[in-house]
Formats: sequence, C-alpha cells, structure tokens
Amino acid sequence: MSIDRLRTFIGEVMDLRHAADLIEWDERVYMPPGGVTVHGEMSAALRRLAHEKFTSSQIGDALQAADGELASADADSTDARMVRVVARDYARATRVPADFVAEHAAVVSAAQHTWAEARARSNFAQFAPHLQKVIDLKRRYVAFFPPADHPYDVLLDDYEPGMKTADVRRLFDSLRQRQVAIIKEVAARPAPAADFLTRSYAENDIWRFAVDVVTAFGFDWARGRQDKSVHPFATGIGASDVRITTRWVEGQPLALLFGTMHEAGHALYEQGVGAEHQRTILEGGASLGVHESQSRLWENMVGRSRPFWDHFFPRLQAACPAQLGGVTAGGFHAAINRVQPTLIRVESDEATYNLHIMLRVELELALIEGSLKVSELPAAWNAKIQEYLGLTPPDDAKGVLQDIHWSAGLFGYFATYTLGNVIAAQLWERFGAVHPDRDAEIGRGDFPALLSWLRAELHQHGRKFEPKELVKRITGSAVDSEPYLRYLERKYASH
Amino acid sequence: MSIDRLRTFIGEVMDLRHAADLIEWDERVYMPPGGVTVHGEMSAALRRLAHEKFTSSQIGDALQAADGELASADADSTDARMVRVVARDYARATRVPADFVAEHAAVVSAAQHTWAEARARSNFAQFAPHLQKVIDLKRRYVAFFPPADHPYDVLLDDYEPGMKTADVRRLFDSLRQRQVAIIKEVAARPAPAADFLTRSYAENDIWRFAVDVVTAFGFDWARGRQDKSVHPFATGIGASDVRITTRWVEGQPLALLFGTMHEAGHALYEQGVGAEHQRTILEGGASLGVHESQSRLWENMVGRSRPFWDHFFPRLQAACPAQLGGVTAGGFHAAINRVQPTLIRVESDEATYNLHIMLRVELELALIEGSLKVSELPAAWNAKIQEYLGLTPPDDAKGVLQDIHWSAGLFGYFATYTLGNVIAAQLWERFGAVHPDRDAEIGRGDFPALLSWLRAELHQHGRKFEPKELVKRITGSAVDSEPYLRYLERKYASH
Repeated sequence: MSIDRLRTFIGEVMDLRHAADLIEWDERVYMPPGGVTVHGEMSAALRRLAHEKFTSSQIGDALQAADGELASADADSTDARMVRVVARDYARATRVPADFVAEHAAVVSAAQHTWAEARARSNFAQFAPHLQKVIDLKRRYVAFFPPADHPYDVLLDDYEPGMKTADVRRLFDSLRQRQVAIIKEVAARPAPAADFLTRSYAENDIWRFAVDVVTAFGFDWARGRQDKSVHPFATGIGASDVRITTRWVEGQPLALLFGTMHEAGHALYEQGVGAEHQRTILEGGASLGVHESQSRLWENMVGRSRPFWDHFFPRLQAACPAQLGGVTAGGFHAAINRVQPTLIRVESDEATYNLHIMLRVELELALIEGSLKVSELPAAWNAKIQEYLGLTPPDDAKGVLQDIHWSAGLFGYFATYTLGNVIAAQLWERFGAVHPDRDAEIGRGDFPALLSWLRAELHQHGRKFEPKELVKRITGSAVDSEPYLRYLERKYASH
Repeated sequence: MSIDRLRTFIGEVMDLRHAADLIEWDERVYMPPGGVTVHGEMSAALRRLAHEKFTSSQIGDALQAADGELASADADSTDARMVRVVARDYARATRVPADFVAEHAAVVSAAQHTWAEARARSNFAQFAPHLQKVIDLKRRYVAFFPPADHPYDVLLDDYEPGMKTADVRRLFDSLRQRQVAIIKEVAARPAPAADFLTRSYAENDIWRFAVDVVTAFGFDWARGRQDKSVHPFATGIGASDVRITTRWVEGQPLALLFGTMHEAGHALYEQGVGAEHQRTILEGGASLGVHESQSRLWENMVGRSRPFWDHFFPRLQAACPAQLGGVTAGGFHAAINRVQPTLIRVESDEATYNLHIMLRVELELALIEGSLKVSELPAAWNAKIQEYLGLTPPDDAKGVLQDIHWSAGLFGYFATYTLGNVIAAQLWERFGAVHPDRDAEIGRGDFPALLSWLRAELHQHGRKFEPKELVKRITGSAVDSEPYLRYLERKYASH
C-alpha cells in the first residue's frame, strides 16, 4: 500500500523534526553559552535533512499513488486527511527553491541581530534596510505560489491554513469599534487597587502554586515537564513529551503564574492529540491561531475568571500571606483584570490586546501591498497607537521596534494572536452552552469536564481539519468575533 | 581537494552523532517517563542515518582519493592522521552488515531487560540463554574481521584501538600478585575511623563543595554544565558543550563528590580537544582507557591525595561543621582511602578495584574462547572472587549479575577501566618528574600547571594518536603497570 509507504517516509521526517525540536528546546533551556555553534550545526543539519527527505521524489511518488488508492475512500477518513495534508505541505515545500530558503535564513539571521541592536539604541534607521530586504523576500516568496486574492493570503496560509486576508479584515472590522468603546468606558471608572500585585514575592511560592493550578487543569507530568527560559514557550516532541517553560521577572510576580497557564494551554492541546496521529503529518495543532485559542482559553477565560479565583485565591493567599493578607478574592480578581492601555503588546490586558495586533497587521498588509514605505513605518505606527489607545511612544524601542517578528520574517503571524482570542471565546461560549455547570465546576477547581470536551472536540484531531472547518464542526459557526465581544462586554460590565 | 570533501562528509556525520548524543543525554537527565518511545525513535533514526552516511560510497571514494593526495604528506600531520582514523572506522563499520547491527540491537535490548529482572530476583538461569545469544553474536562479530592473534583482540579494538589481548594479559599478570599483597598487608592493620563519612549530610552542601572543587580543577562552565541522573556520566557535544551528571545516594554522601571529580576528569579531556579537531573524526578521546585515565587521575591521584585534603578539608569542614567538626585533614584522608574488599565493583577502593576488573576480563576471555560455558559462569565467578578478595557472594545479584555490561554486549569494555588506572599513574608519575612542584601546588589548590600539561600532552590531540602511541609520546614508555604499583605501594605504605 502506498499509504503505508507514505506513513513510513513521513515517520522518518517526523523523527528528524522531533530531534530538531528537542535540540532547539535544549538551546533555550539548558545549553551552556559555548554551545551556540554546535547547536546551530545540529539544528541546521536536522532541518536540512528533514526538508530533503520531505521534498524527495519518493514522497511525491507515494503521494500520487496514494491519491489513486483513496479515490473511493471517505474524504474525512484519517488516511484521506493525512494524504491531503501531506500533499498541501509537499506542494508548499517544493514550490520554494532551496537557494531561496538559504537566502531567507541568512537575511533573517542578520536582520534579527541588527534589530536587537537597533532596539537597544532605539535606532529605526539602522534596522530599516534589513526590514526592506525581509519585505522584498516575502514578496518573492509570494510569487512562488499561484496568484491569490491578496498576496498576504500566501503568508497567512503558512500559519493559518485556509484563512484569507479577507477573513482577517472582516474580523478586525467587527472588533475595532466595540473594543475601543469598551476601553473608553472602563477608563472612565476608578481603577481597582492593585499595589499588592507588585509586592516582593518568593519565586518558589508562585512556581509551586502555578504547578498546582496546571496540574488541576490536567497537565500530565508523566508526559511533560516545566523549566525556565528567557522567553516562555511550549514545545511538543509528539504528545508524550510536551515541555513548557516560564520565567521569573522581578516586579511582575504573576507573569510566572499566567505564563504557566498560557503555556500549559498549548501543552494540553499537544498532549491531547490522538495516538493515531503520532509520528504522522497530523500530529501537533491545526494552526497557530487554534493553538493560541487553547493557551488563551486556559489563561484568560479560566485563569482570569471570578469562579477560578473564588476557588484558588485562598490557596494563593495561604502561600503568600505577607503579600495578600488583607486582600479579598474579589479585590484580587479586579486587580488582575484592570484595564490599562500600554505601549507594549506583551504587557497589555485582554481589553486592549487585539488593538495591538490590528495595528501590526494593518501595517504589515500595507508593507506587503507596497502602499506603505519602510521609511514611513515609524510615523504610521505612532499615528495608529495614538488612534487606538491614545498613547504616544517616547521612542521607537517602545514603538515600532518592540517585536522580533518582522526581523524574523514572520509576516502573517500576528493575526493568529487575535484569531486565538476570537476562537477561544467561541469555544468557551459553546462549552458553556452544552455544559451549563461550567462556571460552577471552575468555582470548585474541577476541570475534567472542560478538558474532556476540548480533547474530544478539538485536541484529538491534531491537524486533521483546517481551522475554519474545525471551528465550524465544533461551534456550528464560522470564525466570528461576536462571542469574544460578548465575553469582553460581560467581563468589563461586571466590574 | 578530496580531503576537504572528506571533511564535509564527516562533518555531516558528526552533526548527526552530536544530535544523538544530546538526545541520549536528555533521555537520562530530563526526559519525562512518557518520552521513552519518541526518544527511542529519534535516537534510532539519527544513529541509522549517521551510519548510512558514514558507510556510504561517497566516504569510500573520498578516502581513496585522499590517500593518493597524502602519499607525500607528513604521516603525523593532522590531515594524514584524520584520513587514517576515518579509514580505520570506515573499514570497521563497513565490515559489519546492517542486518547484523539490527539483530545485535534487538538481542542486547532484550538481554538488558531480562538482566534487570534476573538481577532483581537473583536468578542467573533466567539470564543465561540471553547471555548465550550475546556471546554467539560476539563470535559472529569477530568473524567479520581478518583473523587476529586472539578473537578477543577484535572486541578490544572497538574500545581501545591498537590494544591486544596479549597486552592486557601482560598487564594483569604484572598487577595481580602485587595488588593482592598490598591488600593483605593493609588488611592486617587497624582500620581508620570512618563513621563520619556516613553521617547525614545535606546534598546541597556537598554539591556546592564539589562544584567548587571541579571549578578549581579548571572545568569551564561556559562550555559545560552539571545535572543529576541515576547513573553518573559525561558526554561531550564537541568541546564546547560538555555535560556531566552526578547523583545523591543517601548514606554515601561522598559518592556525589568523588563522582563529580571523576566525571569532571572526563569532561576536562573533552573540553581540551583542539579546535582543529572539532566536527571531525578526531574529536573526543583517544580510547575508553585513555578517557578513564583522565577521570581516575583527577578523582584518585588528585582528589584522594593528602595535599589535596590539606588544602580542601578546612573548606569542607566549614561547609559541614556538624558532621566533620572533630575530624582532622589526616583523619579524613585516611578514612576516604581505607581499604575494604567488597563484592561490588562500583563500591570498591583503589587497592581492590583492578582485581574486580581482572576477574571479569578473565571470565569473558574464557567465554569468548569457549573454554567456559555460560552455565559454569556463576561458579567460576564465585571461585575467583574468593581467590582475589576472600569473599563469597551471598547470591548472584551480588556476584555475576551485578554489572550491566555483558547484557549490553559490551565485551572488551572492562579492560579499559584497568588501563585507565594504569595510564593515569604513568601520566601522574611523568608530570611529577617534569614538574617537581606538583604536590606543593595541589596543596595550595592550584591546578593550572597540571591541566595545562595534560592539555598540551594529551587533551589537544583528541583521537589523533592511538593509545599505545600516545602513552609512548608522553611518557617515553609502553603501557606499563609499574607506575601504578609504585603509586599504590607508596600510598598504602604511608598510612
């Protein structure tokens, strides 16, 4: 059977990708500084071999043969879906010449290096020529693919299969006005007390509490672990070895807690992908946006909710009596949900986060279309952040230079953050509808019903369904911002 | 240049070997239990790919071409030596059919599994058929190679290039009688007080002290790290990322300290291999025996010496005042060097260790020759340990079943432990001769002269020279047990 042959080839590709993933995890978690070069060599060798294997004519031939075998099979069967996803990835991987891939790697490596320097000096002009090169590469990349409705569709499709620029625009149009209105309304109220959030906490107390929380969520420690790294992330070496990281930032003690919940959300997804998909192209998440929906759901819908803190606050208080002695669950919940427009995306709250994303996506669309020049970018950025959040960056480091994404060539990536928020709310609303005990269970610290539902509806499928189709299957609806807006309006109305 | 072509091919093989080494490190140090299968897949895929690449005709062709190019080159040049070592490894790797390698892997995997069970139940009969299969495989392995003076030469050569069975026999013959005499003489004396060695210590105190010691030795933390694992080991991902592990055993607090010194000895060797040898076949150590010489030198010649403790004991005492308050440096030094025949190799002291090795090597020689049957092995073991150490194992778990090596197919490996002791003493004596301040420096905690000498004479060369040649270059002598016997006799005379 050519399907079996395909499975064998893809299994070998997955072994190499797993190895590269683990080595890249090590690089960010335990590598001694001297190991940079040897890690770069290993990682490059494994990625190159995996790419060579995946784009080999053996895969192409097996794909063609499998297509014939499956002509009469159920189009939704795992085999049929697997072949479809291999075919999709194969077509994308073989369209892009190896020379281009190497050039891209070299350009973004230099661009990231210069970006880090430029950000440290708040010197956009230093970064500008590199950004221009990255944009030129992205345009050339788009040209390897058949004409799309919008060139940005091609970039988006790398992270969000099947999602179109038009979908993203529609989503943003429906969010923009009402999110700005929520922020204005909340800003008019007195801010809740939150001084106790920045007191001096012991890292170990927060670490242990965070571990207790994600253990209650259902994180399986026999198939995962948590460590520390400069930038928190989650990585799955298949479903049976899923690793998350967090960090301790002086002055922001709860960043460790909410970061742990966030990464655990990603990890629960990876741990839940069906055994039948392991070591096949269907392992891992459906897309970055769907992945982000899981991290946001656990971090925000669950972890910043009132029932959650009714249950967990007494424990946190007991762990940190000096810092939280006089605080109530309600006061704590209000503090962690205070709305405060900030210049920095990664420090922003639920109400303002999507506006940071819109700003970026609107600018990158304009850059890719060519309607905005790189030299005009800082001014455009500053105008938009003033429009959306009423803020003016004191310098480009706190404005246009704050994120690594563009220097890394990640055009099309930002939109997935907002998709994550929106899909999370759709799932959350849907689960509440089919499971009316939702909030009461969370108020008891009971999460098995939620996790089981996510496993059955979403996690187990891995990459079997594309994001739009998956959301439709689960919620009966297209990707839609209404549930997210309802969630926000309800949340901020109650304060 | 075909030399450059060869370097490129070998570089790619080394990338894969490094990746496999790192993944196997992870498996023993940080892998969650669920990761066993995916780690097995990754490791098998990388080892298989590395083997395929290394035995490909491209390497064979490049080797042949390089041979011509080098006809007029200095035979001791790095290029010439590199080609020679590649040719040696290539010849060995291509002689053994892939089917045999797969069969060997399957047999030793099952044998190790059964060995663990058999040892737990002290049931040799359960293990015997597996051991028979391993021995049969070893004989078939030997048959892939040209006839040697002794079939065991072929097995030895995998770990100790160029070393012959006759060399090992000669060494053992010269050691046996005098080591037994030392043990008898020491046994007649009153044993030194050592109760303070098994008091309850805090792991963290010993860990920090051990780190201070190996930092003083010269372990480079920018190019290495230390973690914990069930069985301590050292692994070098090239010279720039060298990792050691240790463990905490309740009731044996100093095992962590001496284990750290031992593994740091291995690590100092790896960190010292010349930059020119990195990512070539010449990186890493010359042989297991030479590697062991480095671990033994730092652990025993340095770490169990009187000058060392004259300097370091006050520090350890300050770190553990409750346990070591009334102890003197001399009393501590006597205690850690007490001689006490034991049934278990890994718990044995310097005076008795080699006898454990001789016993094993004599038995495995007889098994390979066919002069000893598997069914006769337990009785033969018990007779020999009685002869050498005057002890009788209460059961096979504490006798013939104690070590994993035979179940893992590691025939020829044990001899390298004794070679390590012997070579360590040769190096130690030589260094003392060219550097008369040796003991005074150690008494001041100064190790740069020793490390520099080892770097210049030994470490930097990596695999460039075979063990015998290397020892000759450094000491002017063949591998010789006299320095080790002198070292032991002096050490135990002074008590």
